[in-house]
Amino acid sequence: MKKPLILVTNDDGITAPGIRKLIEIMHEIGEVYVIAPDSPQSGMGHAITINNTLHIEEMKLKGGAEKEWACSGTPVDCVKIAIDKILPRRPDLCVSGINHGSNSSINVIYSGTMSAAVEAGIENIPSIGFSLSDFSYHADFHAAKEHIKQIAMQVLENGLPEGTVLNVNIPKASKSELKGIRVCRQARAKWNEEFEQREDPRGRTYYWLTGRFENLDKGDDTDEWALENNYISVVPVQFDLTAYNSLQVLKSWDLE
Amino acid sequence: MKKPLILVTNDDGITAPGIRKLIEIMHEIGEVYVIAPDSPQSGMGHAITINNTLHIEEMKLKGGAEKEWACSGTPVDCVKIAIDKILPRRPDLCVSGINHGSNSSINVIYSGTMSAAVEAGIENIPSIGFSLSDFSYHADFHAAKEHIKQIAMQVLENGLPEGTVLNVNIPKASKSELKGIRVCRQARAKWNEEFEQREDPRGRTYYWLTGRFENLDKGDDTDEWALENNYISVVPVQFDLTAYNSLQVLKSWDLE
Repeated sequence: MKKPLILVTNDDGITAPGIRKLIEIMHEIGEVYVIAPDSPQSGMGHAITINNTLHIEEMKLKGGAEKEWACSGTPVDCVKIAIDKILPRRPDLCVSGINHGSNSSINVIYSGTMSAAVEAGIENIPSIGFSLSDFSYHADFHAAKEHIKQIAMQVLENGLPEGTVLNVNIPKASKSELKGIRVCRQARAKWNEEFEQREDPRGRTYYWLTGRFENLDKGDDTDEWALENNYISVVPVQFDLTAYNSLQVLKSWDLE
Repeated sequence: MKKPLILVTNDDGITAPGIRKLIEIMHEIGEVYVIAPDSPQSGMGHAITINNTLHIEEMKLKGGAEKEWACSGTPVDCVKIAIDKILPRRPDLCVSGINHGSNSSINVIYSGTMSAAVEAGIENIPSIGFSLSDFSYHADFHAAKEHIKQIAMQVLENGLPEGTVLNVNIPKASKSELKGIRVCRQARAKWNEEFEQREDPRGRTYYWLTGRFENLDKGDDTDEWALENNYISVVPVQFDLTAYNSLQVLKSWDLE
């Protein structure tokens, strides 16, 4: 049987330990092409580059994939240009990550890693974003290796329901602490912003975005609950954003 | 009765004709604060600025709002810093736009204008994104004035269902051609990328992102249908991205 073609991308940049680990794992499953940002692109959400040029550069990194390219654009740009200009055929799977830091709950919406996965989903490619709840450069990306492989292989085998991609988050835990996998919904949560005000050497005020994460959801069927309890969370994510439950409410207004 | 406090933002930048028109309309309803990008931020999606500093600058533009600030960041940054650092209290309404170009169907996901509206929604502020299907600088932002006012006032009066913001798209049509408002779902659609390859003066290859929009959805209950038939489309948009219909499918896999 022909090896599946796997597109690997991320938002932390092509040299980040998380993507190098993901490439290593995908090597055991299929033929791997990497098209990832040439610099960190965290928090880029679903941004695309329309007011600037894009560059891609072929690379050969140690322990790397069959084929690798660094791209000057956002994670979503990487997926778009991979499909249009680089891949020899439509990939059988797109995996994004492993992100340095959680993309659970509302973070899915800010995440370049997840937006890349969603972009592949829009292109009807089975797609998964992987994130680890540990920002450290030296985070343990190995503990969840077998689970990552298992999820990827099941997606290759079963496909995914139309209009759905997977948001997989891995708790910061050792292999023995990991309790397994939970299929969950996205927890209701938000960031409470606390911009930090500073002065530059010329006396001009500037700000750094900082914030405090607030989980507003006590349900035990959420991704936040799973992570807190050392489970890997798997949330099916959709890109039809229609709030179907609200359609009737709006139709009852004096609008139409 | 106290005038409602209205936050106005966009992604085309604080001087764009679309936001100037929206400010003018909101003036007839409430007290207007503007915090908008100091430069065009189209296609920024839900990007936030975490690897760079942010600046804000108070401005006084002709026919402007009570208070206006230009911000160096993305549309989502504008909403975050407005809430944390600028507004005297929680706003009663956030409006984003009027965007130069449509944000119907899948465009909602790439749109800085809609992401700003979604960010306000995450903050539990009733919120609306307005877009006009006309990229021209000289587009007619006036034809839909009464409809924009009507929608904003109904949101102020009724509030919005929890976790829902509105994506309002206006067809390119004269006042007499406009047939009214339709509450719709997001059409299933995608962009087919066609990157344009060029060479810079030093012989290096670069690319421009271009594409062809493809509507995959023939339903007459979609935003694309409404716009094609000269209706203003109103789509309730949610930021809980959980694909609830897919939860059972995934639970039947050999994962948990």
